[in-house]
Amino acid sequence: MDLDPNILHGQQRGTLAAHLGIRYVEVTRERVVAELQIRDELKTAGGRLHGGTIMAFADTLGAVATLVNLPPGAGTTTLESKTNFFAPGRDGTVRGECVPLHRGRRTMVWQTRITDERGRLLAQTIQTQMVLSAP
Amino acid sequence: MDLDPNILHGQQRGTLAAHLGIRYVEVTRERVVAELQIRDELKTAGGRLHGGTIMAFADTLGAVATLVNLPPGAGTTTLESKTNFFAPGRDGTVRGECVPLHRGRRTMVWQTRITDERGRLLAQTIQTQMVLSAP
Amino acid sequence: MDLDPNILHGQQRGTLAAHLGIRYVEVTRERVVAELQIRDELKTAGGRLHGGTIMAFADTLGAVATLVNLPPGAGTTTLESKTNFFAPGRDGTVRGECVPLHRGRRTMVWQTRITDERGRLLAQTIQTQMVLSAP
Amino acid sequence: MDLDPNILHGQQRGTLAAHLGIRYVEVTRERVVAELQIRDELKTAGGRLHGGTIMAFADTLGAVATLVNLPPGAGTTTLESKTNFFAPGRDGTVRGECVPLHRGRRTMVWQTRITDERGRLLAQTIQTQMVLSAP
Repeated sequence: MDLDPNILHGQQRGTLAAHLGIRYVEVTRERVVAELQIRDELKTAGGRLHGGTIMAFADTLGAVATLVNLPPGAGTTTLESKTNFFAPGRDGTVRGECVPLHRGRRTMVWQTRITDERGRLLAQTIQTQMVLSAP
Repeated sequence: MDLDPNILHGQQRGTLAAHLGIRYVEVTRERVVAELQIRDELKTAGGRLHGGTIMAFADTLGAVATLVNLPPGAGTTTLESKTNFFAPGRDGTVRGECVPLHRGRRTMVWQTRITDERGRLLAQTIQTQMVLSAP
Repeated sequence: MDLDPNILHGQQRGTLAAHLGIRYVEVTRERVVAELQIRDELKTAGGRLHGGTIMAFADTLGAVATLVNLPPGAGTTTLESKTNFFAPGRDGTVRGECVPLHRGRRTMVWQTRITDERGRLLAQTIQTQMVLSAP
Repeated sequence: MDLDPNILHGQQRGTLAAHLGIRYVEVTRERVVAELQIRDELKTAGGRLHGGTIMAFADTLGAVATLVNLPPGAGTTTLESKTNFFAPGRDGTVRGECVPLHRGRRTMVWQTRITDERGRLLAQTIQTQMVLSAP
């Protein structure tokens, strides 16, 4: 099922996703796209976009992508997440695009690429979500 | 060199570390320990401590641990970070303890364990920091 | 349950574990220890112990460690595996020691340290095993 | 520079790559492709292609891909490697295709997809290679 980004923005009010400022652009079973504007409080003391911001951004997208693929009543939790960093982010808006590597009954694996406004790849995250069946 | 946690708190004012609320307890070359109080804006919509919070917390400790081990004039950046999640965090304060697996001239590898107030292991992060020589 | 290493050597005859030359030393629920003698066919063209040998060695230990912890009738498969390399192996015998980070109903997570004869840490692997329930 | 696969087969004689039976199909700066025929000694005791075989196969391709991209006199070593497993391999020939995520002066990051004869994705590996400058 596709999700209206505004519904997600409402559901995530007051959570980390809102605290970081994640704005969803597209939420479908095949792809989740979101944006994040770089602000001081998302940076390191050295003035770069914090790796932790990037990992939290990607983790959020992978969890949302799992949610829209779950059977009714099921839940999800992140089992593991791995990020490689390629280039520093400094200013402007970064974009995260999350696509599936695997969607099974027990686990789903998502790949999220984080790019800057020029399309340069800043980081790539792969994460495994456990599918928690309805009791 | 050991660092007074208050100096770090000052250096990180306005950055992600402060935005999350990281409080350093001990900063030495052999170990960095810090705490983080769970608040709503660090959680998921499901009411658990967000995996992204945990990864950002760990990433910050690994970067600080590298900084206090760097030769004069050198810098660092995270090459990659991998986290396994074991149990959900809900309330209270979590503790991060970061110790070295490897401290070389070109890279340092850090292992951070995140535990809750009862000492239960919530997650473990291993990250590789590149050592950037002074120009 | 503890396992007699010789039973494992018999079960793994003709498989990759034997092809590499893995020799089990201790197989208990809490710890699996094994050794591997470095030979040319386990090396790279550069004369070092191949990273692939190390990862295959660790993967085997984590799978065996899961097997002796499974409930009756259950099976296991590796979901993901991550290795950090610290130092090259050249000659002699390497030792792998695998201990649990997490043993749950759905997944188990194992940490394997590979050391050389002088006790130097060559690599560390963390892997997640899925627990496959009996049908 | 592109490499004749037969030159590689000769250079790797007697090493792990030959012990596993890796056959290179294409070796260029942009892509390394190779095949591996599934045999009993590459399997687990359960009769599946061993995860260790897959990781060793991928690690070899990533190292070769780095070698053909290195400046003269430089060397390389694997810093870290991460594999996600999606489906079991049983019979026939698996194919590995390795492409770059990042090719920098200090590190290169490679992504290798392992597929079976029907094109099904069995596993994906991402590895970081350190570039070791000529002394």
